[in-house]
Amino acid sequence: MEHEMKIAVVGGDLRYLYLSDLLSKTYPVYLFGFDKPFDTGASRLPLSDLSRLSQCDLVILPLPAVTEGQWVTAPFSSQRISVYDLLPHLARGALLLGGKVDPAFSSYLEENSCSIADYYEREELAVLNAIPTAEGAIAIAMEELPITLWGCRCLITGYGRVSKALARRLLALGAQVTIAARKHADLAWASSEGFSALPFDQIAGEIATYDLVCNTVPAVVLDEATLRRMNPKSLLIDLASKPGGVDFETARSLGLKTVWALSLPGKAAPATAAAILQTTILNIAKERGKL
Amino acid sequence: MEHEMKIAVVGGDLRYLYLSDLLSKTYPVYLFGFDKPFDTGASRLPLSDLSRLSQCDLVILPLPAVTEGQWVTAPFSSQRISVYDLLPHLARGALLLGGKVDPAFSSYLEENSCSIADYYEREELAVLNAIPTAEGAIAIAMEELPITLWGCRCLITGYGRVSKALARRLLALGAQVTIAARKHADLAWASSEGFSALPFDQIAGEIATYDLVCNTVPAVVLDEATLRRMNPKSLLIDLASKPGGVDFETARSLGLKTVWALSLPGKAAPATAAAILQTTILNIAKERGKL
Amino acid sequence: MEHEMKIAVVGGDLRYLYLSDLLSKTYPVYLFGFDKPFDTGASRLPLSDLSRLSQCDLVILPLPAVTEGQWVTAPFSSQRISVYDLLPHLARGALLLGGKVDPAFSSYLEENSCSIADYYEREELAVLNAIPTAEGAIAIAMEELPITLWGCRCLITGYGRVSKALARRLLALGAQVTIAARKHADLAWASSEGFSALPFDQIAGEIATYDLVCNTVPAVVLDEATLRRMNPKSLLIDLASKPGGVDFETARSLGLKTVWALSLPGKAAPATAAAILQTTILNIAKERGKL
Amino acid sequence: MEHEMKIAVVGGDLRYLYLSDLLSKTYPVYLFGFDKPFDTGASRLPLSDLSRLSQCDLVILPLPAVTEGQWVTAPFSSQRISVYDLLPHLARGALLLGGKVDPAFSSYLEENSCSIADYYEREELAVLNAIPTAEGAIAIAMEELPITLWGCRCLITGYGRVSKALARRLLALGAQVTIAARKHADLAWASSEGFSALPFDQIAGEIATYDLVCNTVPAVVLDEATLRRMNPKSLLIDLASKPGGVDFETARSLGLKTVWALSLPGKAAPATAAAILQTTILNIAKERGKL
Repeated sequence: MEHEMKIAVVGGDLRYLYLSDLLSKTYPVYLFGFDKPFDTGASRLPLSDLSRLSQCDLVILPLPAVTEGQWVTAPFSSQRISVYDLLPHLARGALLLGGKVDPAFSSYLEENSCSIADYYEREELAVLNAIPTAEGAIAIAMEELPITLWGCRCLITGYGRVSKALARRLLALGAQVTIAARKHADLAWASSEGFSALPFDQIAGEIATYDLVCNTVPAVVLDEATLRRMNPKSLLIDLASKPGGVDFETARSLGLKTVWALSLPGKAAPATAAAILQTTILNIAKERGKL
Repeated sequence: MEHEMKIAVVGGDLRYLYLSDLLSKTYPVYLFGFDKPFDTGASRLPLSDLSRLSQCDLVILPLPAVTEGQWVTAPFSSQRISVYDLLPHLARGALLLGGKVDPAFSSYLEENSCSIADYYEREELAVLNAIPTAEGAIAIAMEELPITLWGCRCLITGYGRVSKALARRLLALGAQVTIAARKHADLAWASSEGFSALPFDQIAGEIATYDLVCNTVPAVVLDEATLRRMNPKSLLIDLASKPGGVDFETARSLGLKTVWALSLPGKAAPATAAAILQTTILNIAKERGKL
Repeated sequence: MEHEMKIAVVGGDLRYLYLSDLLSKTYPVYLFGFDKPFDTGASRLPLSDLSRLSQCDLVILPLPAVTEGQWVTAPFSSQRISVYDLLPHLARGALLLGGKVDPAFSSYLEENSCSIADYYEREELAVLNAIPTAEGAIAIAMEELPITLWGCRCLITGYGRVSKALARRLLALGAQVTIAARKHADLAWASSEGFSALPFDQIAGEIATYDLVCNTVPAVVLDEATLRRMNPKSLLIDLASKPGGVDFETARSLGLKTVWALSLPGKAAPATAAAILQTTILNIAKERGKL
Repeated sequence: MEHEMKIAVVGGDLRYLYLSDLLSKTYPVYLFGFDKPFDTGASRLPLSDLSRLSQCDLVILPLPAVTEGQWVTAPFSSQRISVYDLLPHLARGALLLGGKVDPAFSSYLEENSCSIADYYEREELAVLNAIPTAEGAIAIAMEELPITLWGCRCLITGYGRVSKALARRLLALGAQVTIAARKHADLAWASSEGFSALPFDQIAGEIATYDLVCNTVPAVVLDEATLRRMNPKSLLIDLASKPGGVDFETARSLGLKTVWALSLPGKAAPATAAAILQTTILNIAKERGKL
């Protein structure tokens, strides 16, 4: 029965506060790892009450769940929370969830006949997170460019989730949008949606004509030779994770205005990011028979 | 050198006439299988000149290439054309292309150290063909419904290429669009694009509220129980190939207005369908080193 | 009290049947001028019962209300209905409504201390009717052109209600849309919405580049000199009323495919056209204190 | 002959620097009122060279042209520039242009058989300026709201230029947009474009349901009674000039997050604002026979 499921949220940033509040509209929620009172419908508890976890059917860890192999990400807690202190309190059959779960921690759990579901690996989360990412990139472009996006010549490299969400929005705002992609099928998709389609090997030859270049490919697509041809007044936003897709040193030395925009969902729209987390977590809970 | 490549188009419907004309703007093109003179820049030749195939680098068969295991689809030719009559004329190294190629014919070619590229299996063709399909479906809906698409409540089952192309157009025309899909990720995509998202198992419960139902899933999604709940004034368009996704007999017996719309690209927009064929064929030719 | 208002619908085409049905969901409705039974919630009455008009607060005549100065437009009635036969039955204070009311009839009413509200002069009706008109034009273009609207180069002359509704839809379907207008402000509006803007005096010079030309200006914009420059494969749709904006004789002699599309709302979407009539009529009734 | 026209730009903010640069691509341009060197193709001159105005066919004053009845708006000049010092240098027949021209100054010019064209009164400028205004409002909303605009419930009061530009963009970004307007025709337009339409007298009753409220009406539409019903977490952006449309004191006392966003074009997109000025100024010059 839905209304009897109990949930714990342990640690996390602002998003997890919003998440605890959203979940509290349907379920009893215990919130750990937030020192100060906040506006949430969840019951905020001190770490000394961790034993209450034993009442919970769902225990939600943040994104990333654990840093340095042990510590629950908890920027709003003055005390550190070791994930190994939580485990003894978990009820048998409780569902543990976390984002970007450390493989060492995953292995440890398995060895102890426990498991954790990684919500960050779910496609619906990635799909929906592309929306606040795209909006965040648009806000950056509006802030940094002296021109409107209406009429702005934009190049987006790659045609994955973020690229699609961003390209559609830019087009709708009146920009001229070109998608650079490798595969014929992606180029076909791009032109079917009203974008210009540019094969990857033509990027360098055309890059000088763009006011805004957004990279979404996690590999150095915009290398020195390409960057040298950019219009020095244009803006470069890198939306690719970890290695990024831009040769930043060269970009800097060329005086190109460059923004490496990471983790936009949590920054640009924490409440929506929380709603996306909630959707994903409840989907998992349902699949695991908890709902 | 591109300008020296020679191409033959053998058989086909109106699309292949348009295709011959498009290709003739860049290449010399021989056209076989059209008895009467048409408006095309290609050289129309009688079947007695099939030996000219030996000069061609690309030989294009229609879609489907061959019927009854032997005959080239050629509705504009009074004479039948056996594919086995063509083969002896092909130059060594010539690229043979066709759509929905019969496996028996494919095997025969292989045994004779020859091969055929099936352009119908290319994703870029499928992606682009979704556009005339979507437009064709819209034309049908405009024709058949006494209401505008603006404000029309539309349900589309499935979220593949045709569904996406159609859903975006309907939304842009002011319809209220719901996507019914199975996967969480598809439902997430649908809602990220501004559609309502409906899990498959809720179709029957909601179907009564729609003015237009478009099926794109090639499996009977709209079974008797579901059809019985439809608003009898609504319109049902089945865009799924072969088995279709509608229990047509029941639909008929219930008096539901149903259209099974097959092969829309060639019917709704033969010139665009030809341009899509050209793009795909030239992509293949390029990959095979012919361009 | 709303629920006590009684309404009569006298004559009209299919739209008025739909209108009688829509209104019957809230009010008692008497329907005159339809010989055969139809699917409507209104009470269909014979002309011998015209005295029942005396019970009605609203009496709705069709569009145009009266032809030849006397006869109510009534294509579904085998008997002619003289408007002068209705008048004696009207209750004092009843609101008489009609479309495109004949000035002679209007004067006659005034002389007899009666009056009629012309719903066809209401701007909200014109604004909303632009939607089925635009959809009707799109259906024609889809039917007549061998290419998709996606990628189609469209020129629309004028920038009034129909032009705006049509241009937005074509753009959303992936067409390249150019608006030809006279005023700087209209050209600014057009470019702000993502259309190319073309001053009127440049139409002739550019017209050869379009696949589809839609006229919305009720004055001969597309004269012989301009028509001579059109691409003979292109399609010309004239959406302007009465005189039209196309030199049709010349168009015909040049072999240009030309469609003069009049009264599209009633043809393309009679049910929506009825809903628009209802909205407008109830707005008038409200303003006159009847609701 | 176009290339011989000479232009002076006197004073102004960043936009006028961009404007001088844009114009300098076609015409010789003298720039006064900027102390420091900037990146512009115009010839920057000291005020001691004002006599060069006598060579100019067009003399452009900023927006507002004159403050305190005398001083040219010139934030980048350390010296004040009296408009009366310019006049003696103007060539006979030179076209003087300015924005929001002071009536006293206008009268003075007339008395001296001179005149000034007010480009701020041109509709094409107002139409195009609505675009950077709308983008500026979107940037503010993205910055201030913890949710994405996708899914955001937005109310826009009024349906003029800014409202239209903003509403279309919000809808395209996935927001749910409601337009509050007085006239039936505006409500019809709004619903024809896919917005919900709300009669003005229903604002107070519905306002609690919105996440974002944007006012574009220059009269206090959002009075105390209405503000009291707003969701305290929602954001209120006032885009109306001078008196504004919000009871700011009450809004503040209620703890509502309120932004009064004035002069967004120059702030959000000075380069585009300059291009809009250029279009308008050249339109005027053409009408006056200078081009």
